[in-house]
Amino acid sequence: MTAKPLILVTNDDGIFAPGIRMLIDIMKELGDVVVVAPDKPQSAMGHAITINSTLYLNRVSGENDNEYSCSGTPVDCVKLAVNEILHQKPDLCVSGINHGSNSSINVIYSGTMSAAVEAGIEGIPAIGFSLADFDWNADFSQSRKFIRNIAAHVLERSLSNGTILNVNIPKLPEADIKGIKICRQAKAMWMEKFDKRTNPNGKDYYWLTGEFVNQDEGEDTDEWALANGYISVVPVHYDMTAHHAIQELNSWKINE
Amino acid sequence: MTAKPLILVTNDDGIFAPGIRMLIDIMKELGDVVVVAPDKPQSAMGHAITINSTLYLNRVSGENDNEYSCSGTPVDCVKLAVNEILHQKPDLCVSGINHGSNSSINVIYSGTMSAAVEAGIEGIPAIGFSLADFDWNADFSQSRKFIRNIAAHVLERSLSNGTILNVNIPKLPEADIKGIKICRQAKAMWMEKFDKRTNPNGKDYYWLTGEFVNQDEGEDTDEWALANGYISVVPVHYDMTAHHAIQELNSWKINE
Repeated sequence: MTAKPLILVTNDDGIFAPGIRMLIDIMKELGDVVVVAPDKPQSAMGHAITINSTLYLNRVSGENDNEYSCSGTPVDCVKLAVNEILHQKPDLCVSGINHGSNSSINVIYSGTMSAAVEAGIEGIPAIGFSLADFDWNADFSQSRKFIRNIAAHVLERSLSNGTILNVNIPKLPEADIKGIKICRQAKAMWMEKFDKRTNPNGKDYYWLTGEFVNQDEGEDTDEWALANGYISVVPVHYDMTAHHAIQELNSWKINE
Repeated sequence: MTAKPLILVTNDDGIFAPGIRMLIDIMKELGDVVVVAPDKPQSAMGHAITINSTLYLNRVSGENDNEYSCSGTPVDCVKLAVNEILHQKPDLCVSGINHGSNSSINVIYSGTMSAAVEAGIEGIPAIGFSLADFDWNADFSQSRKFIRNIAAHVLERSLSNGTILNVNIPKLPEADIKGIKICRQAKAMWMEKFDKRTNPNGKDYYWLTGEFVNQDEGEDTDEWALANGYISVVPVHYDMTAHHAIQELNSWKINE
């Protein structure tokens, strides 16, 4: 009899978010689940880590004995889970289900995806899941079948070293989802707009707001897939080298 | 007469760090300088942004009237600078000089580089500078000539859309620096080790520590360049798609 796979579950919305509860429930069908997730919302924390402060872990009681909340960032959660709780690399790390899309450029701001990328850096097959619905009470059940399918494929085949999957699910009933599409990250960005206000003491402050602008009409992008009823799967890696630019920079002859 | 270029300077060590003071001094030789930098150290903040809290800007008095400290992350600084202070895109954004290396995988944890990457996302030519010396009182003057040269080249030629430079400078006297080398990001990582302690109330807590391990012997990497007396310049981009993995994932026929 083969041992069940060991699956680490984390997220950035916090350990009690409905999205991670659904992901834990799905993963229990596939393996032995250990949860290490932030004790508070950590959205948009990117790949932040805690280097000048302390980290706490707390065992969370409940139906599953293997759940820990962590005082740090999503990336801290993965590092602590591997080194201080599991004492081994899990067979899979899944992060999410995020409340809101992490398609295109959002991959770089997202705590959900950064946790998955951290697992990838450590050589662990990893997937980030996000539902394109920011509602705390969003219906995550519609994506159950697809998430199980993608995770089962990764457990069976693994991933090329250093490849992490960024999975985004459109806000649609299961019957209306056309399938899963392998995509590239769309060239899109946020056009910021700051809401400037004055506090009760007369000092100005700002709230970051913005509008998401997709400048990419490619039909091979995650934005296209989501807009057309597909689940987008973008393979992501952490080699940020712009390899195509090396030749151009060498032509500058900067040392002469 | 041509107008002087407008240069935005930021960092992650905070607006009063010696590294940014040197960078401001160098940039004043090349253009009109505006500084928007964190009001406190923000190392290892990655690409974090402040979405659930307020942001403050404070004009910092001193020899230069165009300096502002910001209560947010390095990426927040760039967004606020462009939208609320400059009201235009600068001709160049430089971040640093970081106290400590941001070579190889550190690009992804670094607030210094994330600020530069944010500028790149917004279409601004951008460079992050780091000195491989964590000492607060490190000698930044040795790198003056090289930083000026690289920034002047970027101002003259600009950068391909979406390319950001990650510049790391070895801890060597100027005379011993062999030159500038265009590189790729080395495949290296941190092997974490948590220092577990008990607080005065009897509760366990953790400090993140670790050892940097370079698994990449390539002579075209930033780690090789730094170890051999060169300044490394890695062109970085924010398309995190692992394009080479798309074909493999399509072969899974995940919809069947």
